[in-house]
Amino acid sequence: MSVLIVGTTALDSIKTPTKENPRLLGGSASHAAVAASFFSPVKLVGGVGEDFPKKYIKLYRKHGIDLGGLQILPGKTFHWSGEYGVNMNNRRTLATELGVIETFQPKLPAAYQNAPFLLLGNIAPALQLSVLGQMKKPKFVVADSMDLWINIALPDLLKLLKRVDGFVLNDSEAELLTKSDNVFAALKKIHQLGPKYVIIKKGSHGSILSGPKGIFICPAYPLHTVEDPTGAGDSFVGGLIGYLASAKGSIDANLRRAMVYGSVTASFCCEGFGLNRTTKIKHSDIEKRVKELVGMTEF
Amino acid sequence: MSVLIVGTTALDSIKTPTKENPRLLGGSASHAAVAASFFSPVKLVGGVGEDFPKKYIKLYRKHGIDLGGLQILPGKTFHWSGEYGVNMNNRRTLATELGVIETFQPKLPAAYQNAPFLLLGNIAPALQLSVLGQMKKPKFVVADSMDLWINIALPDLLKLLKRVDGFVLNDSEAELLTKSDNVFAALKKIHQLGPKYVIIKKGSHGSILSGPKGIFICPAYPLHTVEDPTGAGDSFVGGLIGYLASAKGSIDANLRRAMVYGSVTASFCCEGFGLNRTTKIKHSDIEKRVKELVGMTEF
Repeated sequence: MSVLIVGTTALDSIKTPTKENPRLLGGSASHAAVAASFFSPVKLVGGVGEDFPKKYIKLYRKHGIDLGGLQILPGKTFHWSGEYGVNMNNRRTLATELGVIETFQPKLPAAYQNAPFLLLGNIAPALQLSVLGQMKKPKFVVADSMDLWINIALPDLLKLLKRVDGFVLNDSEAELLTKSDNVFAALKKIHQLGPKYVIIKKGSHGSILSGPKGIFICPAYPLHTVEDPTGAGDSFVGGLIGYLASAKGSIDANLRRAMVYGSVTASFCCEGFGLNRTTKIKHSDIEKRVKELVGMTEF
Repeated sequence: MSVLIVGTTALDSIKTPTKENPRLLGGSASHAAVAASFFSPVKLVGGVGEDFPKKYIKLYRKHGIDLGGLQILPGKTFHWSGEYGVNMNNRRTLATELGVIETFQPKLPAAYQNAPFLLLGNIAPALQLSVLGQMKKPKFVVADSMDLWINIALPDLLKLLKRVDGFVLNDSEAELLTKSDNVFAALKKIHQLGPKYVIIKKGSHGSILSGPKGIFICPAYPLHTVEDPTGAGDSFVGGLIGYLASAKGSIDANLRRAMVYGSVTASFCCEGFGLNRTTKIKHSDIEKRVKELVGMTEF
């Protein structure tokens, strides 16, 4: 089944202690869409400026991503630039040029409105709500977010949480949202805000799912080298929903495995700048790592 | 089979943001011995002062711990006092009074020298070497350590590592020892120092085993409340070696499961001050959590 993904479509300039890569394809929707494309057909909703490189359009197309919902708007593409510290855990935003994203209003083509799986990738909650409002009757809706929206758009985010099946956030965002550093207390509070499924991402420490079948502790695929973790969280949730949309059976029956697929897809993202590595892998590379990860967790 | 455990036998005064508990039974050997006692007969090697409370001797005995190697020495028991911050991750040592531990020399009773399993719990590497030197032919030797010994007794520690089967340390100690923050690079370097099995503990994020059967990612049992994490690492390795000594079959066949048992035993340690909680559980409580943990990791 197909997955509709909304989020930012951006150009990312990324510095690490050893390398610098300007104007890479980035943004939450780009990372999530490429990740999901390994499993299911993807429809993208986003807005870019007239400066958006043709090669990135080609890259989306190479992954079979439907661009019927990608608006090319007068002005410049959203540009983010950031710098990572030595251990890749701390990053510092150097510049944020919103460009066309400032006034972007998602408009769903008719063919998009029936998509059964919807990923509301990280973007302003008001835009996530706008996309959700244009959908007919999605089977499964998952939302991602970030600290920025918890800080500056909490009322919209809370409105959104009442209407999604799943919510994905990282551990520090969970603490920010719930004022609790205990994972159980945080999960309980987030469930009370609406979502049946809550996923807390912990970077290289894996992730935790809480839902009707209880807690699932999902390992991260351990990496020999991390080149650039930008977009890993988006790749995780993209791989997750892509796998879910491809799997037969109920959400409950597939969600744990979907998290493992998301986790493995995200591992590739970290091994190259931007989407450099993820766009070079095959589906079989993901299957191989999933098998390895199974071998690393069995006892 | 029996487990010989050497390490510190101490009195711990522990402060957390909400509570304060003076002169609890503590020390690496105490925590490890109680943890191991749920699975196998334990022989303790340590030294305490004349002030060591009788009730703690009784507590060891309640757990069937053989005290033939516990020396009661003229002077005061090793006393450590520390304080935890709000999130329980950072602790600050308030005072360290070495007492009898300063001149303590482990002497193994004849009946101890044939113990098949040996845990060299966290204590000066010179003392760990001394105990190892008095053993006949242990089947399996695992050593624990801490940042202090990496900083002030590295030559002794390196000598020790050449002679043990397994080495357990936490992630920051692994980085300190290897100057590498990548887990694979760190594991490789530590294997080169001698141990066939290396275990890196990551607190609430679980632990990682590296050995001939590859990598094993061991989850931590997630806790609703953490009262006091002091001794959790010692409980982990104590539970691990206790389980190993009780299990039929090869080390390789049992080690992953032993880590899960160690992880679960350590979870109880965190739920009370000092050994307050661990000394109140039954073996069936451990089995119950192991079963739950299996349920939280299957996919």
